[in-house]
Amino acid sequence: MKADDDDLLPVAGNGLLHRRLFLRGGAGLLGALALLEARPARADGPPDVPPWMKAPGEGMRPYGSRSRHEEHVSRLVGAMPGTTGAGSSRTPLEALEGIITPSALHFERHHAGVPDIDPARHKLLIHGLVERPLVFDVESLSRYPHVSRIRFLECSGNSAPNNAPEPPQQSAGALHGLVSCSEWTGVPLGLLLDETGVRPEARWVVAEGADAAAMSRSVPLQKAFDDALVALYQNGERLRPEQGYPMRLFLPGWEGNMSVKWLRRLKVTATPSMTKDETSKYTDLLPNGEALQFTFPMGVKSVITSPSGTMTMRGPGVYRVSGLAWSGAGRIRRVEVSADGGRTWAEAALDEPVLPKALCRFRIAWRWDGGPAVLQSRAIDETGAVQPTRSALLAERGPSYRYHYHAIQSWAVTPDGEVRNVYA
Amino acid sequence: MKADDDDLLPVAGNGLLHRRLFLRGGAGLLGALALLEARPARADGPPDVPPWMKAPGEGMRPYGSRSRHEEHVSRLVGAMPGTTGAGSSRTPLEALEGIITPSALHFERHHAGVPDIDPARHKLLIHGLVERPLVFDVESLSRYPHVSRIRFLECSGNSAPNNAPEPPQQSAGALHGLVSCSEWTGVPLGLLLDETGVRPEARWVVAEGADAAAMSRSVPLQKAFDDALVALYQNGERLRPEQGYPMRLFLPGWEGNMSVKWLRRLKVTATPSMTKDETSKYTDLLPNGEALQFTFPMGVKSVITSPSGTMTMRGPGVYRVSGLAWSGAGRIRRVEVSADGGRTWAEAALDEPVLPKALCRFRIAWRWDGGPAVLQSRAIDETGAVQPTRSALLAERGPSYRYHYHAIQSWAVTPDGEVRNVYA
Repeated sequence: MKADDDDLLPVAGNGLLHRRLFLRGGAGLLGALALLEARPARADGPPDVPPWMKAPGEGMRPYGSRSRHEEHVSRLVGAMPGTTGAGSSRTPLEALEGIITPSALHFERHHAGVPDIDPARHKLLIHGLVERPLVFDVESLSRYPHVSRIRFLECSGNSAPNNAPEPPQQSAGALHGLVSCSEWTGVPLGLLLDETGVRPEARWVVAEGADAAAMSRSVPLQKAFDDALVALYQNGERLRPEQGYPMRLFLPGWEGNMSVKWLRRLKVTATPSMTKDETSKYTDLLPNGEALQFTFPMGVKSVITSPSGTMTMRGPGVYRVSGLAWSGAGRIRRVEVSADGGRTWAEAALDEPVLPKALCRFRIAWRWDGGPAVLQSRAIDETGAVQPTRSALLAERGPSYRYHYHAIQSWAVTPDGEVRNVYA
Repeated sequence: MKADDDDLLPVAGNGLLHRRLFLRGGAGLLGALALLEARPARADGPPDVPPWMKAPGEGMRPYGSRSRHEEHVSRLVGAMPGTTGAGSSRTPLEALEGIITPSALHFERHHAGVPDIDPARHKLLIHGLVERPLVFDVESLSRYPHVSRIRFLECSGNSAPNNAPEPPQQSAGALHGLVSCSEWTGVPLGLLLDETGVRPEARWVVAEGADAAAMSRSVPLQKAFDDALVALYQNGERLRPEQGYPMRLFLPGWEGNMSVKWLRRLKVTATPSMTKDETSKYTDLLPNGEALQFTFPMGVKSVITSPSGTMTMRGPGVYRVSGLAWSGAGRIRRVEVSADGGRTWAEAALDEPVLPKALCRFRIAWRWDGGPAVLQSRAIDETGAVQPTRSALLAERGPSYRYHYHAIQSWAVTPDGEVRNVYA
């Protein structure tokens, strides 16, 4: 290790380095680079000509696919026993970069599988407390003003495995992969409600999906006018079947279950409809036996995706630490990282743009000295809300707390280099 | 037509309406909505139960794909006669929304096809005027700081069909689809150059790809330090094979050909290398017989994607107009739309976020009265550069001008509702 330690700019305990290394190329921090835990090889001559340069390659394709060498990256499918289509699949967060989730790897949560919908026959009815009940199909919706927004979607059951008495030894995706982020394009729901003429006594709207479960949730009318979309496109192309093709409700920042897929009906009402999907599920049981209902926005949250659970370190040196932060309340203001289990914190660099209700990629460099360490990240959003520790969250919400788990994730690094899920 | 015309807020000739319709839901513009060229149906009872609600749907999948009803959306493949892999494929811009191009539909331009590279055997050599020539593989690059950026990529030959004496009657994608936009993640090239120790006399770097053409371009060293990436990920996952798997150079805002795919070598030099790919191609012949070389940044540009060439209007009424704008110099400041062939202009709404060197989605409403019209869009970037008319561009650059064509696109709407490419 020849670098001058002064160049390393440690800013918090146990080896966290200044985020400057990730800003504008990080000039002046070559000392840190020189400590990378494995070095590039010194070149000893001109490069070999590999076999794939010796003959022309494959031709062009109308619709591309990924390299056969990347097929190990997949959603983690957890189907419920005895059902064909109930359960979830999780995004492999630790294998991805940036903030856009490829549509093929966006998490799924279905209650009766993915319906095979003919878009020419699908209809959306808006009725109830309105002057003019209307029926829209894909064609008629396509004539209304569209907007596009990059926004996260998170299942309210995400991260629930960390509610277990012992920390599950799983990957970041297996623990926290019920969150994804896409560019969603569609029609502002407020425009469609205005067209139907909402009556003065209306306060709610119940959304129903065209799956065999007729998944239904009650949505406050105010949210429908604030920023709700009837989404038709995801990441540039038409919605994928498992994301609600040909149309879904999209409620930025709110628990994913409410962004009803395969949307076929919106009934405007005066009160919540108390559907099976908001009484038997998606309520939060409290220690005193009461249950919180209609807890819509997702809390401020973050997780380090590299290094993360089930990974192995390659020996002492400087590592890049990378992760995701998000909040249902708006933009992420700041992410802090600790390598000493929360005693000291360093500010991470955030990739631009930092968008409201979107995933935010944070990065920091960490010099691991080979000793024990506990890595944590803590997000703060623009409202000032701070991601809580696990013990604070469970003290407030009780040990059976299941939905909206958004506590700090702790990854212990053992002297062997193993990265383990711990409750710190 | 019952709406009060005062509600329609015409802001330019021949029916262009105020962009307010696309901002914050457009309350107060229901008069315009009431003139939509086809109306949603009045509902006459509860919705039918479609067949796909009568049985559970499909289960979850490790890696998803699009609906079978969307398989008609594809890249427009143009292979060169007598070759297996030289040519291009174009993004079907008119079928997409938002600013993110799905990786499966990102345009391609290959000189010798797509090599099938084993990522474990691929190496990147940095040598030439450096203190320490180094060899990087995917593993060693993965240890360096990464950044993510949403940026467009455009082939300098994009839109060249509009150089023909008669306007080709093709779609927006067929004419202008050699542009796409992705979230790219990789290592800032400046960091890697710093590690090798660039010598004081160095001014250029030549980049070479690992395809059978060994595609090579000279890049000014300053650009390499400004914002160049060695990209490893596109839209969250590893690069697709046709986008340079496992690593490519990425030069934001510059002609796509320089963002060398399957990057295997960067040689630091004092002067440009005058490779075959920058002397036999990618130079701009001028009327006086001289040729412009090293014309790197892509000009300020826009195109209306809906309505656009080969589409048919469905009769008089209010239409949503939507398109894309971009500039190699930075952010789009403003996009204006004309419905009278450039006599009067209205400002379009821009979807947030408006990012530097990225596609920008613009939108405006247009009330077509059924008469003849010529739709145009004109982009202005943050440097104040204004997209030129076709006649101004060709007057300056001559009739054989081929690369960097960035003139205003004119779509004529005939009284029959046909949308035609015209030189207006």
